Amino acid sequence: MSKFMLNTLGLGSVGIASYFWGRSSTPQSPVQPPSNPTSTGIVPAKGNNQNSVGAFDPATIRPQDFFKYGYPGPNHDLGNRNEFISCYDRSTRNPYWVLEHITPQSIKSVEGVDRKKSVFREDEAIPLKFRARLRDYFRSGYDRGHQAPAADAKFTQETMNETFLLTNMSPQVGDGFNRDYWAHFEDFCRRLTQKYDNVRIMTGPLYLPKLCEDDKYRVTYEVIGSPPNIAVPTHFFKLVVGEKNGDEQIAAAAFVMPNEPIDNARSLTEFQVPIDALERSAGLELLQKVPYYNKKDLCREVKCEIIVREFPKAIQRAASAPAGLPAPRN
Amino acid sequence: MSKFMLNTLGLGSVGIASYFWGRSSTPQSPVQPPSNPTSTGIVPAKGNNQNSVGAFDPATIRPQDFFKYGYPGPNHDLGNRNEFISCYDRSTRNPYWVLEHITPQSIKSVEGVDRKKSVFREDEAIPLKFRARLRDYFRSGYDRGHQAPAADAKFTQETMNETFLLTNMSPQVGDGFNRDYWAHFEDFCRRLTQKYDNVRIMTGPLYLPKLCEDDKYRVTYEVIGSPPNIAVPTHFFKLVVGEKNGDEQIAAAAFVMPNEPIDNARSLTEFQVPIDALERSAGLELLQKVPYYNKKDLCREVKCEIIVREFPKAIQRAASAPAGLPAPRN
Repeated sequence: MSKFMLNTLGLGSVGIASYFWGRSSTPQSPVQPPSNPTSTGIVPAKGNNQNSVGAFDPATIRPQDFFKYGYPGPNHDLGNRNEFISCYDRSTRNPYWVLEHITPQSIKSVEGVDRKKSVFREDEAIPLKFRARLRDYFRSGYDRGHQAPAADAKFTQETMNETFLLTNMSPQVGDGFNRDYWAHFEDFCRRLTQKYDNVRIMTGPLYLPKLCEDDKYRVTYEVIGSPPNIAVPTHFFKLVVGEKNGDEQIAAAAFVMPNEPIDNARSLTEFQVPIDALERSAGLELLQKVPYYNKKDLCREVKCEIIVREFPKAIQRAASAPAGLPAPRN
Repeated sequence: MSKFMLNTLGLGSVGIASYFWGRSSTPQSPVQPPSNPTSTGIVPAKGNNQNSVGAFDPATIRPQDFFKYGYPGPNHDLGNRNEFISCYDRSTRNPYWVLEHITPQSIKSVEGVDRKKSVFREDEAIPLKFRARLRDYFRSGYDRGHQAPAADAKFTQETMNETFLLTNMSPQVGDGFNRDYWAHFEDFCRRLTQKYDNVRIMTGPLYLPKLCEDDKYRVTYEVIGSPPNIAVPTHFFKLVVGEKNGDEQIAAAAFVMPNEPIDNARSLTEFQVPIDALERSAGLELLQKVPYYNKKDLCREVKCEIIVREFPKAIQRAASAPAGLPAPRN
C-alpha cells in the first residue's frame, strides 16, 4: 500500500513546495515578516502560562472562535439567471449543478436571438483565485461545455448570453460527445415540452471511480490550465423532471454519461440510473420532498430516445424547425 | 484527446449502468411504476400546449421552483464538538476540514482519560447514503486517520471519544505517515501552546493533481469500500494559528503533506506552503478577515520542526511527559 502510494499518488516530496510556491505570484511567503525577525524558538520561558494554571474550565475551549478570522467555506456561489441557477464548486472550478426550467413557449426561437451574438465570459462574481478562466480552456482540447444549453434559453438574447458564463461550463469532449450524443440528449429534454407543461433539468459533472487492474477503485481526472485549475469531469449527469399542470405526480429520470465519444446508435435508456444512485455519487439529495407515490419513471411515460439530426452546419442554420418540434441545436 | 478519454477515464460504457444499478439495493428503478404502464411516447397530441401560446412572458420561467422538491445541496454537515468542529463532504465521505482549539491547559493529561476507552464510530447525523462506514475502512490498508487528534482532546473522556467519530477521519497511510511523521507534526502543533495562549488548527484532506508523463496534470485517488465509498486523499493540510492574549497579531502557517511515508529526517519547513496557495487548492478562504499586517509567519516566530520520539510503545505509555512538555502521542 505504502509502495503504491509512493509510486502513484500525489506530488513527489520535492513536488509539493514547488507546486505550491510556483503557483504563488511571489515565491516568498505571502504573510508579513515579523516585526522582530529573530526566531525565538519554542523554548518554554520561566513563568510560561502552561505552568500557571488552576482548575481547567472546558468552556475556555472554543473552536468556533476561529470564525472571527472569516468563515472558510466551502462557499457555493449561486448564480441566479433568467433561465437557470448555477451552483459553483470552488475547488474543481466546475458547477456542482445547474438547474433549468423550460416550457413549450420558452424554447421557441425568437427573431434576432442568435448564439453567434453570445460570447464566452468569466464570471466576475467568483473571486479570482477560485475562478474558471478563459485561458484555462485555451488549447486544452476540451469544449467549454454548456450545462444549461444555449438552445434552452433563446427567449431573449440576454438570457442566452447568460448561458455563456464560465460558471455554466464544464470541460467536455467535443467530437462524439458535446457536439453529438450529448447535444441529442439535450434535444430530447427540449422535446419533453411536447408532453409536459414544465420541464426541470439539473445538469452537472461527476468524478467517478473505475475498477483498476489491481482490483482497487480509483478516480482519475485531468485538470486543465497552467497552473492546473479546472477539473475535467469523468461523467455528466442530468436529472430530468416533467410536470403537468394540475397533476401532483411528476415524471423523473436520472442519466449519467461518460465524458467521451458515445456512439449515436446507443440507446438513451442505457444511461439511465436510479435517482438514489446519482444522489450517492454526487453527494446531493434529489427530489427528497416528493413522496414516492408521486414520482413516476419518466422512461415509462415517454420514449427515452435521442433523435439524430445530422444536418450539415449551413443547412442546419438555414432550416426551420420541423413542424411541431423544437429546432435542432443551433 | 478522445482516444485518451476512452482509454483512461471513467467507467466503460457498459460500466455505468452496472456500477449504478449495482450500488442500488434493488436492481429495479427506485421510482414508482406509472399507474398506466403503457408508454405513451412523445408524440404531440392535437391541441398540445405548444401550439396554443400567446405572447411569451419570461417571468413564467422560474428555475428556482425546483426547490419545492427539496434543496439538492451540497450540504455541509457541521459537527460541533467540545474540542473541534468538523465540516463533512458528502461526496468524498471525508471532512472538508476540522477546526480545533487547544491551549496550554487543554492538552494536559487528565487522570482516567485514555484513548483505549474510545471506539471508532459512524456519525449517525449523516444520512446513510452519504455516510462513511466502519466497514469501508475494513481491510482497506488505510488507517482511520484522526483530523483532530485524540491527544488534543484529553480534557474529558467524552471530548476524546468525539474525536473517534468517522466524520473526524480520513483514510491515511499508517506506517511512515499517520503513525510517524504526521504524528510528530501533530505533536509540533501541541508544543506551540508553550508559546501561544491559543492555538487554532484547521486540518483536512486535499486531492491534488500531479504532472504526468504526457505533460498533463491529473488527480488520481483511490476510493475504499465495497461499493466504493470513501475517497483516499492524496495530501493533507494543516493551517496553524498561534494567538497571544492581548496581541492583535497572529502567527500563521500552512503545511501540506502527501499521504505517504515521509522520512523523519525531512524538515517540517519543506512542507510549508503559502496560505493563498492552500486556499486555491482547497477552494477555501483562510484568515481573510485578518489584515496582512496582523499576520506573521509562524515559522519565523518559532522553529518549525518535528521532534522524533521513538519510544517503544510500552515505555511510551508508562513514561510521563518530559518536564514542561506535553506528553508524546498516546
